[in-house]
Amino acid sequence: MGKLSKLVNSLQPSPIREMLKAVSELKYKGIDVIQLSTGQPSLPLDEEVIEFLISKLKEDPLTVSSYTPTGGIKQLILKIIEDLKYFGKIEVEENEVVITEGASEGLLLASLALFDDEDEVIILEPSYVSYPNVVLIAGAKPIFLTQKMENGYQPDLEELKSKITNKTKAIIFATPDNPTGRIINPQIAKGLIEIAKDHDLWIIVDEAYKHLIYEGEHIWFWRNEDARNRTICINTFSKDPAMTGFRLGYAFGPKEVISSMERIKQYTTLCSNTPAQIAALKYLEPRIKERVLKYTLDIYKRRRDALINSMLEFISEARFVKPAGAMYLFADFSKYLKNLNIDDKTFMMDLVNKKGVAVINGSSFGPSGKNHIRITFVGENENRINKGVILINEYLKEGRKNDFK
Amino acid sequence: MGKLSKLVNSLQPSPIREMLKAVSELKYKGIDVIQLSTGQPSLPLDEEVIEFLISKLKEDPLTVSSYTPTGGIKQLILKIIEDLKYFGKIEVEENEVVITEGASEGLLLASLALFDDEDEVIILEPSYVSYPNVVLIAGAKPIFLTQKMENGYQPDLEELKSKITNKTKAIIFATPDNPTGRIINPQIAKGLIEIAKDHDLWIIVDEAYKHLIYEGEHIWFWRNEDARNRTICINTFSKDPAMTGFRLGYAFGPKEVISSMERIKQYTTLCSNTPAQIAALKYLEPRIKERVLKYTLDIYKRRRDALINSMLEFISEARFVKPAGAMYLFADFSKYLKNLNIDDKTFMMDLVNKKGVAVINGSSFGPSGKNHIRITFVGENENRINKGVILINEYLKEGRKNDFK
Repeated sequence: MGKLSKLVNSLQPSPIREMLKAVSELKYKGIDVIQLSTGQPSLPLDEEVIEFLISKLKEDPLTVSSYTPTGGIKQLILKIIEDLKYFGKIEVEENEVVITEGASEGLLLASLALFDDEDEVIILEPSYVSYPNVVLIAGAKPIFLTQKMENGYQPDLEELKSKITNKTKAIIFATPDNPTGRIINPQIAKGLIEIAKDHDLWIIVDEAYKHLIYEGEHIWFWRNEDARNRTICINTFSKDPAMTGFRLGYAFGPKEVISSMERIKQYTTLCSNTPAQIAALKYLEPRIKERVLKYTLDIYKRRRDALINSMLEFISEARFVKPAGAMYLFADFSKYLKNLNIDDKTFMMDLVNKKGVAVINGSSFGPSGKNHIRITFVGENENRINKGVILINEYLKEGRKNDFK
Repeated sequence: MGKLSKLVNSLQPSPIREMLKAVSELKYKGIDVIQLSTGQPSLPLDEEVIEFLISKLKEDPLTVSSYTPTGGIKQLILKIIEDLKYFGKIEVEENEVVITEGASEGLLLASLALFDDEDEVIILEPSYVSYPNVVLIAGAKPIFLTQKMENGYQPDLEELKSKITNKTKAIIFATPDNPTGRIINPQIAKGLIEIAKDHDLWIIVDEAYKHLIYEGEHIWFWRNEDARNRTICINTFSKDPAMTGFRLGYAFGPKEVISSMERIKQYTTLCSNTPAQIAALKYLEPRIKERVLKYTLDIYKRRRDALINSMLEFISEARFVKPAGAMYLFADFSKYLKNLNIDDKTFMMDLVNKKGVAVINGSSFGPSGKNHIRITFVGENENRINKGVILINEYLKEGRKNDFK
């Protein structure tokens, strides 16, 4: 057989997708799994949004099953502009927005539009698994800058400067962050923008969790004059409306970048899927979105607090920073894992197989994630989150000796 | 502002997507456009498929709106395997199939999984606009091999051999073909496989139109023992079931390639959208698919014949080969365009703006497409196809002098 590309070997398999596979196999065998691993909310999409999609499927199936322009349905782009004005108080033009197949495609298109071979891209880690991999697909080199727990996972600007070379092309990060839930501090955001300006760097901000904030406020980079002509904001409909399976998102940024992303999208997915674009149109009605956000945030906040309380009670030697946003708690399990003499990947796979609790190992999110565990708090109710933590504690006491249940 | 990637400038904007945009702007102004340009069928998706999707949206919205495994829903993969056995009499294993976001993503993933910088990839042209562009995204170099009208657009195997160097990694083509509708001759297919075997080349076959055949039969490369371990077949649900807007397809091939494509897909789209996967599950019931194919092929064949008859009557100096499959007639307009002293791109844009008839210029499909025009016959009924040809004829007589209508 012929050879595969070098790229294939440089890409990490996503542990989240591996875990999803392991969980679906366990479920197939009839085993109950407490799902604390994926970014999949357990709340279904709003009923009115579903009803709207159903009515369009009935009234006008040809439109629902037809291509849209590559950059997306015009009405949806206009709705997004209104939405950004309403929630973010920012002004974005029509040619500054492109609809994508989730944040995933947004990150890919931005990378392909901006990066060449030899370029270096600074990734604030621990971070979402896609960042280094889309940089590699574009042929560039990921450079990690560690954000430390003792700084509340805020990036250290002096360290950031020390990572910049004449090959540095961009900085990628999320706020609120996955896996730590930290929101970038406004002063640090300002400093970061100044550094980017000084060194003519692109900024790619993943805003997937911008509406899932429990304490504090979202940092809208687009509000900063100096950021606007160098910042690409990556957004998704997966998280707040829980439309993960619909695979829809959008990116906004300088029009030259957006039109380049649109040009590349002709050859990645041609256009985003029409049913999702129609559903998103309805979700973006302020009345519906505000209702969904109120309902969702209330539930997620209670789940987050339940997880924190359970952790403090049952896994008290895990160290973590209270997540201010997003869907995850990122905890340092060093003390436990060193005692058990296992690494975080072994822990993750053994835990799901022996106790039926799915979490993600920290190393997946970058070098500093070693011996950490990411626990999702939006996929299960409070009782099951509590039960999951108790089972983790059981495992930590027993170690690898027992078989499943 | 910072620099964009070199890739952006090397990618051609797709004329099909440009035309779609021009058409939607004309329609927005209330101008009737005869749509002979896109690969968008005018038949809606089968009612039973739509009903099935609606019932799932009602009964189990959480599943419809949730992620699937990256490679796709297991049941859908199993259905595809049954479908390939039923229609193609080929045996494909579960780990030899990956679900993609249309054929577009299938082509992209195959290119990223197989090609490195410096690799050369032979593209049989005229051909679908994506092929050279996905090769460029993977960093490799497209090498065109022209298929000539006088050979019925069959590739010349001696010429193919002459294009092979020690850098050649793969051959990409479609059968039935877009834009010419030719089906590869079985003897030539066999010869092509032998050449690929001798030089250890990958074969990427775009089978998007495998069910849209009016005369002859589809060539199933997978039936050939020598092809199986080097051939990746790219498929879509866009064409025969007219699910273009659902953005769904699949690829099958050697399991090492498929698992690599799946690994890359974690960072392109994460997973294909769930509503489309659910709809496709229903479409693949043999009873439904056979009903759709019978209905569709009958209509498309009549439309093709109407187009051919109109061409012979009104544009008799255009030269073309009767398309045996797919959705398009590819005609050499050299005589007309030379008289008018315009190129095919100018003709295309002027025709849609002055006569409201949308076609695609031939140069978009490769170097040999110069002075050719691609006319789609599935997007309009026979009367409107006839009307479109009459309007093209009017334009050819008048030239560029008149304004719209």
